[in-house]
Amino acid sequence: MNFASDNGSGVAPEIMSALAAVNDGAVPGYGADAYTQEACDRLSDVFERDVTVFLVATGTAANALNLAAITQPHGAVFVHERAHVHTDECGAPEFFMHGAKLLPLAGEHGKLTPAAVEQGLDGFAQGIVHHPQAQAVSLSQVTECGTVYSVAEIEALTALAKSHSLRVHMDGARFANALVSLGCSPAEMTWKAGVDVLSFGATKNGAMGVEAVIVFDEGLAADLPFMRKRAGQLLSKGRFLGAQMAAYLTDDLWLNMAGHANAMAALLAAGIEKLPGARLRHPVQANQLFAVLPKPAHKALVAAGAAYYPWEREPDGISVRLVTSFCTPAEEVEEFLSIAANAL
Amino acid sequence: MNFASDNGSGVAPEIMSALAAVNDGAVPGYGADAYTQEACDRLSDVFERDVTVFLVATGTAANALNLAAITQPHGAVFVHERAHVHTDECGAPEFFMHGAKLLPLAGEHGKLTPAAVEQGLDGFAQGIVHHPQAQAVSLSQVTECGTVYSVAEIEALTALAKSHSLRVHMDGARFANALVSLGCSPAEMTWKAGVDVLSFGATKNGAMGVEAVIVFDEGLAADLPFMRKRAGQLLSKGRFLGAQMAAYLTDDLWLNMAGHANAMAALLAAGIEKLPGARLRHPVQANQLFAVLPKPAHKALVAAGAAYYPWEREPDGISVRLVTSFCTPAEEVEEFLSIAANAL
Amino acid sequence: MNFASDNGSGVAPEIMSALAAVNDGAVPGYGADAYTQEACDRLSDVFERDVTVFLVATGTAANALNLAAITQPHGAVFVHERAHVHTDECGAPEFFMHGAKLLPLAGEHGKLTPAAVEQGLDGFAQGIVHHPQAQAVSLSQVTECGTVYSVAEIEALTALAKSHSLRVHMDGARFANALVSLGCSPAEMTWKAGVDVLSFGATKNGAMGVEAVIVFDEGLAADLPFMRKRAGQLLSKGRFLGAQMAAYLTDDLWLNMAGHANAMAALLAAGIEKLPGARLRHPVQANQLFAVLPKPAHKALVAAGAAYYPWEREPDGISVRLVTSFCTPAEEVEEFLSIAANAL
Amino acid sequence: MNFASDNGSGVAPEIMSALAAVNDGAVPGYGADAYTQEACDRLSDVFERDVTVFLVATGTAANALNLAAITQPHGAVFVHERAHVHTDECGAPEFFMHGAKLLPLAGEHGKLTPAAVEQGLDGFAQGIVHHPQAQAVSLSQVTECGTVYSVAEIEALTALAKSHSLRVHMDGARFANALVSLGCSPAEMTWKAGVDVLSFGATKNGAMGVEAVIVFDEGLAADLPFMRKRAGQLLSKGRFLGAQMAAYLTDDLWLNMAGHANAMAALLAAGIEKLPGARLRHPVQANQLFAVLPKPAHKALVAAGAAYYPWEREPDGISVRLVTSFCTPAEEVEEFLSIAANAL
Repeated sequence: MNFASDNGSGVAPEIMSALAAVNDGAVPGYGADAYTQEACDRLSDVFERDVTVFLVATGTAANALNLAAITQPHGAVFVHERAHVHTDECGAPEFFMHGAKLLPLAGEHGKLTPAAVEQGLDGFAQGIVHHPQAQAVSLSQVTECGTVYSVAEIEALTALAKSHSLRVHMDGARFANALVSLGCSPAEMTWKAGVDVLSFGATKNGAMGVEAVIVFDEGLAADLPFMRKRAGQLLSKGRFLGAQMAAYLTDDLWLNMAGHANAMAALLAAGIEKLPGARLRHPVQANQLFAVLPKPAHKALVAAGAAYYPWEREPDGISVRLVTSFCTPAEEVEEFLSIAANAL
Repeated sequence: MNFASDNGSGVAPEIMSALAAVNDGAVPGYGADAYTQEACDRLSDVFERDVTVFLVATGTAANALNLAAITQPHGAVFVHERAHVHTDECGAPEFFMHGAKLLPLAGEHGKLTPAAVEQGLDGFAQGIVHHPQAQAVSLSQVTECGTVYSVAEIEALTALAKSHSLRVHMDGARFANALVSLGCSPAEMTWKAGVDVLSFGATKNGAMGVEAVIVFDEGLAADLPFMRKRAGQLLSKGRFLGAQMAAYLTDDLWLNMAGHANAMAALLAAGIEKLPGARLRHPVQANQLFAVLPKPAHKALVAAGAAYYPWEREPDGISVRLVTSFCTPAEEVEEFLSIAANAL
Repeated sequence: MNFASDNGSGVAPEIMSALAAVNDGAVPGYGADAYTQEACDRLSDVFERDVTVFLVATGTAANALNLAAITQPHGAVFVHERAHVHTDECGAPEFFMHGAKLLPLAGEHGKLTPAAVEQGLDGFAQGIVHHPQAQAVSLSQVTECGTVYSVAEIEALTALAKSHSLRVHMDGARFANALVSLGCSPAEMTWKAGVDVLSFGATKNGAMGVEAVIVFDEGLAADLPFMRKRAGQLLSKGRFLGAQMAAYLTDDLWLNMAGHANAMAALLAAGIEKLPGARLRHPVQANQLFAVLPKPAHKALVAAGAAYYPWEREPDGISVRLVTSFCTPAEEVEEFLSIAANAL
Repeated sequence: MNFASDNGSGVAPEIMSALAAVNDGAVPGYGADAYTQEACDRLSDVFERDVTVFLVATGTAANALNLAAITQPHGAVFVHERAHVHTDECGAPEFFMHGAKLLPLAGEHGKLTPAAVEQGLDGFAQGIVHHPQAQAVSLSQVTECGTVYSVAEIEALTALAKSHSLRVHMDGARFANALVSLGCSPAEMTWKAGVDVLSFGATKNGAMGVEAVIVFDEGLAADLPFMRKRAGQLLSKGRFLGAQMAAYLTDDLWLNMAGHANAMAALLAAGIEKLPGARLRHPVQANQLFAVLPKPAHKALVAAGAAYYPWEREPDGISVRLVTSFCTPAEEVEEFLSIAANAL
């Protein structure tokens, strides 16, 4: 029963096979190979337009490169106070941005609101030389509370952002999970809604280790080749990143895997809601679930070997995070729920 | 006939198999898995002592992290003027070091000498507040000219370095090739010879994408966990780095692969030396070869589809770099030589 | 009637004379002169112990250097959400710290509390590689709301800080104003209360342009000479910084000037409290005053040429900041109050 | 007998008076005062065109800001291997440029040549992602060897630079000395000759502490207000920088002072050339002089209290640097020469 992280899962068999399939022969290094080109082409297909793509090894790098592409060193980026870029990347964005600031804002269920951004702007009047210059907004889709912005919510944020000349970054570490949740198109959830740059995750959803920096406004991409290399993120045997991403996007593999993970989370959520004394802390809209469990249920689960993390503090029980993945078996969900139920 | 780069080769079958072999089941992320632990243990075995290991995705990151571990932002590092860290990493070391300087020095066949370092120190008197503070020396083993420092040469450099309180970094992107060339032990070529931190490469020698930051002096390692994370180099599915490195070090795979690459370079070198009008620019001691080819030979080779890079300029012909790898077939070497010979 | 900023005032005559007095003859550059030594000696006297001193040209530089001395690039510093270092230095601290984060916390009247810091630590568990590492707390004495921490308040903060291995910085841009307000000794307000590093301001209180980085724990000072130089803050004709600071500390000049400024602010505050419809937003404890003025009073004052800044928004009138200085004439205060009173 | 540095001298009386003259009354802070405006206007007059000016406290800051304005973090700047920015600013340019590289080149008498820059470009092919990207050239006028580039030499360098899209920075710490030496106009020595940004020094030539970042191409100036603030170089009582610079440029004060310093250096040089066993190491074209003195002369001079620095090593005597300033008395030069002559 592993609900600790989607990172704890292995690699989808289709993706593992793709690695072996591209192994033969000599090909150009550093992403100048045909497999990487194929990955880029597929991403342009997925987004229904030409996009500029830079494959990298980690989500941290994708986020940090994207933020650095839209923020100057004397700039600042509005983020949710629980944003992964703010709390869980050991300062990588600030490193890549050469010291630009992340300005944390509050917001229910992990979501930024136009009102919060507007209030944030109050304290950092643009154009005044003393203030760090607000230049961007970063939102996580899926959020760090497991919720998903609706397209309208994204559009409201980007509209405000653009009216203040702020660029918009989307941290899509769980992009597929959000997409499947909303049922819209990738284009609708991103550039059509005003997103400028996107971290397109694949690792958490069945890849081995590949994420895409995706730039919708080509003008923002000019320096990224150098920034990626300088960050140690230009892999020499680039074919193996390209092959992962191409396979990920083939035959709806990515959507099917995300769909499964979301379904398992929904199943889990439905069961937890029925447990006496348990509650969900946030709406469950993708593959992450934040709940408060009664102590006896928690004890029984831990004793049975269930893996998951405690998460923040709540007064009325054990606050936990549960994550499902592309390969979470329904049986594990059922087992989890039954152990919890029996303990109460 | 691919002699363009060892990066153009794929992955050793043993390593590809290892990836598949560790794919099942849930394991902790971020390098807290048993496969990564196994890789670290093997590296301690290889070096005959406890070493602190940080696996990363690229050689650029390994070098930049290592240099940042031994140099402060107001510091400076002596390097050979052709060092990869100086010319071919788009400034990654300076980025990771927060602006510390690389001070390039001249030296025959890609090698730093104690005399050159001593002269370099002349212009940057230590302790004087106006001068960038010399704090380290970085040497490449194999060098960027395809030569290999002898253990005595390394010891002479580290002795001088230590007498000036300079730390010593070894860029071992082609560590195995150098080791096989010298026939000494890994310990003798590194910490016993005074090396403080090592970039231990595997990617060029048959891995998919894994390099190790190896720290011999534990005191230098305290901040590296945070530095690696902050650099976007802590891979979430770390088991796949661990598995590569563990397989690489199993049953002398790494040494056998390097031995083959070196042998192919020696074969190539022997043939080129016999070509009328051709010459080697540097001694061939590992798996890189720098030669001047007569124009007709070059034309014929290119026409036959041989892949290699022009390299610097020489007055008397086409100056080229040729690189062999763990999977270079002897037939390709023979074919290369025969085409060249026939054209002259 | 200038209440715009203490920076709008000129230089105390005693300090201007001191500049002329040290002008003759050749002396060593870069702070190796006798006048700088004298300034350092006087600061050691003032603090009743040996202190390490680095004179710089701006308060921004003093704060940024101090924070960089106690925080690593992957670190984080807790600050009040209105702290000058957070909102009014265009990101200088993050620049000097190479990207370390400032983590803003709420608190009444501009003050940090142990409870707020403790809550801040919750989100950034120390030692976990994913989180930016909390390493310091920075407090402003006088705060940005014109209030002054009591010695007991400082001690409570530093006690919590030390229990979490956090270093403590004090931004003393208006150090003298706070000191006179508390009536304690400089030692009591700083190192005896647990402060590690201090930005000791003089410019706002009658100097031309000199601030001191003061380090109480010598171990933190080792790299500062290089950091200051590298930041372009080592002035070549250092004698003119030394002379300012020495004169500032002679014959209680600094305390007398701060006492006058504080007295003028108290006079102003007393008068404003009597104005119908006006109110003070924060206790007035030094030389800054934040008030809400009725619109007619504001209009009359502006028409009469009174200079001051609007400051944040309040629903019930014009929210303003008023600052007095060492040379604010009592007549200007009286004039201000009488114009305001007549308008109501 | 002080020939240690032009920084060892005090302030011209006209400039000291100007400080006192602007002291009365309240004026806006942070350079928004009339005196700073006057300084900027005068600089536009001096350069016969509109220039964008940022006053700062040190030459190190002026150089570092200028280089950061024309170089991206992944960029590189060609400099002479003895350039002050390379050897004597403790890495400030790299700090302000966020890690961009200075690439040192050799050249006789401290001068860069087009040939050297062209050769430098060879090793750093532009547009290739692996290489740090060459983006600028920085030349010192006066050079660190005391020589002065002719206008034709500057034009040759800038022509080559522009043909490779490199921006050109001039470090004019001793701008006035070079100008007087050449006898051309400030415009001819700078923007008319292809210089993009200039560090315009005043401190070494009689000011207390003020240097100007001067940008000829307005497009390069957009971020500099923020960069200056973020670097702690926006002085709050800016009137005192403005007043210095305005006075410096009034009634040819700056040119007269530089003319005197140059004349004293010429006098010194003429005398040294006549000393048996002494020699000049570089042509003496401004106010710095590099000579080799016979040991007995050196001993006698030191015994007599003459102050100057040893400078690099030469086999045939004591190699020294001698610097004259706006207030070097001719008598001190005569005394120096007579002591030296008597000792030989």
